[in-house]
Amino acid sequence: MTVLAIDIGGTKMAAAVVDDDGNVLRRDRTPTVPADPWPTFVAMLDELVADEQVDGVGIGCGGPMTWPSGEVSPLNIPGWRDFPLRARLAERYPGVPVRLHNDAVAVAIAEHWRGAAQGVDNMIGMVVSTGVGGGIVSGGRILDGATGNAGHIGHVVADPAGPMCACGARGCLEAIARGPATVAWAREQGSEAMDGPALARLAADGDEVAMAAFARSGEAVGRVIAWCAALLDLEMVVVGGGLAQAGPPLWEPMLAAVREQAVLPFLTELRVVAPGLGGDAGLVGAAALVLAGERYWSAD
Amino acid sequence: MTVLAIDIGGTKMAAAVVDDDGNVLRRDRTPTVPADPWPTFVAMLDELVADEQVDGVGIGCGGPMTWPSGEVSPLNIPGWRDFPLRARLAERYPGVPVRLHNDAVAVAIAEHWRGAAQGVDNMIGMVVSTGVGGGIVSGGRILDGATGNAGHIGHVVADPAGPMCACGARGCLEAIARGPATVAWAREQGSEAMDGPALARLAADGDEVAMAAFARSGEAVGRVIAWCAALLDLEMVVVGGGLAQAGPPLWEPMLAAVREQAVLPFLTELRVVAPGLGGDAGLVGAAALVLAGERYWSAD
Repeated sequence: MTVLAIDIGGTKMAAAVVDDDGNVLRRDRTPTVPADPWPTFVAMLDELVADEQVDGVGIGCGGPMTWPSGEVSPLNIPGWRDFPLRARLAERYPGVPVRLHNDAVAVAIAEHWRGAAQGVDNMIGMVVSTGVGGGIVSGGRILDGATGNAGHIGHVVADPAGPMCACGARGCLEAIARGPATVAWAREQGSEAMDGPALARLAADGDEVAMAAFARSGEAVGRVIAWCAALLDLEMVVVGGGLAQAGPPLWEPMLAAVREQAVLPFLTELRVVAPGLGGDAGLVGAAALVLAGERYWSAD
Repeated sequence: MTVLAIDIGGTKMAAAVVDDDGNVLRRDRTPTVPADPWPTFVAMLDELVADEQVDGVGIGCGGPMTWPSGEVSPLNIPGWRDFPLRARLAERYPGVPVRLHNDAVAVAIAEHWRGAAQGVDNMIGMVVSTGVGGGIVSGGRILDGATGNAGHIGHVVADPAGPMCACGARGCLEAIARGPATVAWAREQGSEAMDGPALARLAADGDEVAMAAFARSGEAVGRVIAWCAALLDLEMVVVGGGLAQAGPPLWEPMLAAVREQAVLPFLTELRVVAPGLGGDAGLVGAAALVLAGERYWSAD
């Protein structure tokens, strides 16, 4: 059995043929054409799949979207607004399951299925990057919520007195800890870092402002992790995404905040860890929507 | 089919015989004897059940507890520490399912099964009373978490700069909004109210300090509701418990905070409502652990 796995982001579109065990057999990627991504997208798929029969299609895509119907309106792809991605792929691959979920949910699924959280049935997989998102596994199943939007951990409020968030509320975790917000805060304090990787290099060299910026973001992430762990009685949180690659300047304050806040007796064993999968996580999670659908796909 | 339903709190122990539809056929209650509750408890059960054959036993009990094994250590019953309540009841009622969960989880189950949240498959039922607790239904099933402790909404931090909580963290919702904390805050501002009902009467008469106290607690509850709704993609939150009976002085600030914070597009239909069941909710939820166990009981 092989599955076509697809991971759609604002910068690139990736696809792979994945086997039963979650191994990527072959892959391709192409830059996203924001105004009209469909032609380059299907050309990539046609070349990748060629004449092979795939047994299903799994897709992770940036939100917002309708779910499970899969009309997508990814923030960074203005050419797709209410674009019927699931239906269009179902036409191209008739007779097999075609399933679509939020990209952060796909990453969480991947970590549960084949990554750092294998066998851990109560966990959150989160991505701290340009945005802050996640997916929740409870009792061994992915939570979808009423409209497929469960997992929006970036909009738990880390600090009611914090900065305004693009969503319209104040102090959301995403408004504090996403990469661009972390860089913006550092620049307000006088840093000249232009982006997250530059800020991470400065922090690694001991730059005080850069270290303070990661500490501020890491502490906010850690606090929200602790509260979500109390609410959901979690065993593990996997923290991935670009910002999470900043290493100790982010992780040490984050883990300290978790220890300080996760004090209920049932949280003493809570683990907060780095991902087990690398850049393929989105593809592996998309494949799991088909290959391990009993745990990860509750819709029709 | 009839079930023996049991609701154990620090003040009273209640029991009922409940039919398939969740109707209470007959009931009894007895004051809790904190040092040694077992003798009066079983005397009540024996009189209530008499020679009738019950088809199962469902129990809601204050925490902490081990779950699903059901050794209970209710905070307000010092005579029970690691008391094997589930096992002891299984000995008295052999051959039928005996199931036990947290009392706040039982109330949430009751509201989903027979109360305000019937047919609403993504909801939280919460109790704002001496403590602040809750239970989560996602995808139509109760969430247990790793150790049966999912639903601890009282330990989501409403205000990182808030008062210390008994759990050891700062600013937990429970530390701000539980009844005794609401009264204590009012007294710090000069109120002479001795308890929640007295404070509620003052607020109903327009007393400014009492109204401010309920506004402070209501706003904290509303904000946490909004964040949990974002995280879990909820359709409804049911707010019960003694403090929630204070009416508009609590509800208006709470609903205003929900409206202000629940701004993501998928939350526009979020409803925050009063319970559909009265004081029987704990018993009805306990019965549902047996009568509708496929949704509410995942353990052995």
